[in-house]
Amino acid sequence: MQAFVTGCGGFIGSNLADCLLRDGHSVVGYDNFSTGQLQFLEKASRFPSFKLVHGDTLDFDRLRGAMQGSDIVFHFAANADVRFGTDHPRKDLEQNTIATFNVLEAMRLNEIRRIVFPSTGSIYGEPNIFPTPEQPPFPVQTSLYGASKLACEGLIQAYCESFGFQCWIFRYVSILGERYTHGHVFDFYKRLRDSPDELYILGNGRQRKSYLAVQDCIEAMVLAVEKARNKINIFNLGTDEYCEVNDSVRWITEHLGLDPRLTYSGGERGWIGDSPFIYLDCTKIRSLGWKPTLSIRDGIIRTIEYLEANSWVLGVRA
Amino acid sequence: MQAFVTGCGGFIGSNLADCLLRDGHSVVGYDNFSTGQLQFLEKASRFPSFKLVHGDTLDFDRLRGAMQGSDIVFHFAANADVRFGTDHPRKDLEQNTIATFNVLEAMRLNEIRRIVFPSTGSIYGEPNIFPTPEQPPFPVQTSLYGASKLACEGLIQAYCESFGFQCWIFRYVSILGERYTHGHVFDFYKRLRDSPDELYILGNGRQRKSYLAVQDCIEAMVLAVEKARNKINIFNLGTDEYCEVNDSVRWITEHLGLDPRLTYSGGERGWIGDSPFIYLDCTKIRSLGWKPTLSIRDGIIRTIEYLEANSWVLGVRA
Repeated sequence: MQAFVTGCGGFIGSNLADCLLRDGHSVVGYDNFSTGQLQFLEKASRFPSFKLVHGDTLDFDRLRGAMQGSDIVFHFAANADVRFGTDHPRKDLEQNTIATFNVLEAMRLNEIRRIVFPSTGSIYGEPNIFPTPEQPPFPVQTSLYGASKLACEGLIQAYCESFGFQCWIFRYVSILGERYTHGHVFDFYKRLRDSPDELYILGNGRQRKSYLAVQDCIEAMVLAVEKARNKINIFNLGTDEYCEVNDSVRWITEHLGLDPRLTYSGGERGWIGDSPFIYLDCTKIRSLGWKPTLSIRDGIIRTIEYLEANSWVLGVRA
Repeated sequence: MQAFVTGCGGFIGSNLADCLLRDGHSVVGYDNFSTGQLQFLEKASRFPSFKLVHGDTLDFDRLRGAMQGSDIVFHFAANADVRFGTDHPRKDLEQNTIATFNVLEAMRLNEIRRIVFPSTGSIYGEPNIFPTPEQPPFPVQTSLYGASKLACEGLIQAYCESFGFQCWIFRYVSILGERYTHGHVFDFYKRLRDSPDELYILGNGRQRKSYLAVQDCIEAMVLAVEKARNKINIFNLGTDEYCEVNDSVRWITEHLGLDPRLTYSGGERGWIGDSPFIYLDCTKIRSLGWKPTLSIRDGIIRTIEYLEANSWVLGVRA
């Protein structure tokens, strides 16, 4: 199988490329390296079955050409920044919605009909049901990021109905692990490294979050693509637990042997559109035989260990 | 109140402009007249409180300038063509999703924060609950048109959360009446006029549809904007009934005194993405005191009467 992976230089995309190559597939990686890192592709580059194309998903002709001959598309290029959406609203529209449309059109013209897409638990907005299943009451969007991923999902689903595509859509909790370059844990570690005696926390620290280790995330996706045979396959991906932001702060500081003074911006939300409680019902993906191997705590510690061993990553603005 | 109405030369937009002007408001209409009709603005043009700007919603600078000084935006410019989406997938993206983003950004920069948006019952895909309420289980999209309206809804909701906007989103059944220029009834009438002895029907004729007269639709929206005070207000709009396509054919042919031979393309759906059953639960809008004045049958007959009296409309490709 030849897999086309957009965003292959990114956190999840590069780990996915490694996994597909290890499993014996060919991979054509596509990335504009605006946030992706060539260093993340060191392992992949050792495989003769890996080919890298520098390109932007907004460059339709290049995208279409690079995709030619692939059997399946893993569309992982995205603006993954949920927090700063209000600073540049057009970014989510362009890099998520329009980029995904381009990917779908390039697939259609290349007669490639299978697409794997990373969505987000953020599209549930602020749900009333916990853990939240894949079909809660029709949600209302609370962030530009969530809205853009919802738009992508809708497009993908419509292409399945209209043009005989098959899709696997995964709604993630926060993913962390090797090559992780943004999010709570990254921010906390980076700030504690600069100022070990104090840590400023957005919100009241009581926000309840769920995390999944990137290797567990990728295993789930690969399994689902193999086993789930519907036209449209949608899965929540997460651990069957959640923690408070304060828990993750405690695990991180204990691991680092620090005892910083904690201060809080206050309020239920860390920022506009921050969901105070994310906890997904993962019964559906578990029914395929998958389960996470790392707890939230273990995933966070592993991530800190990765950041300690790869401090160059701290300079990356993802 | 100064209302900015995009798509004011269209079927619903022009009827809305008439209503707002009659109610004593100022209206700035904005239309590129790609499908809108100057003739539809004859009544509006008699009001000194009406101003018309020729412009495209994809021309951001023009849009932003034209909008300046308005208090509320009725964003009715759209690609309203649900049936031919697969012929030109980019049209729904550009004219619905990107256009709506432009409207929201122009509003934000002009500090206008109230938006009224016509969405569609098509975003419910193929629901399992009839009549379908505003919060059925999270639907899967079945048409590019529905997907694009879903993307617009998500954007609007995210702007409400992120930038203090307030919105009124209306999910329509098929609207018909004066200035109606596309859809089942239009197509049937037009074809019967050319060939009174035969009528070819897409699907098996058993598709169950719901229709609402445009005047009832506009009254509902105006009432909701006045009375519904939440940040995000979402209403289904329809009659509390549905009919089969065969029913509408019978009413039309009886009214015209024709007895054509009926032939069918067959199948549950008239085209890819056609929903075989649309029937919305309108309890929520009714709880504000609104109810439709015309039945589906009356609405269809009135529409035929309008088309008979305004045959130039049959030449319009909307």
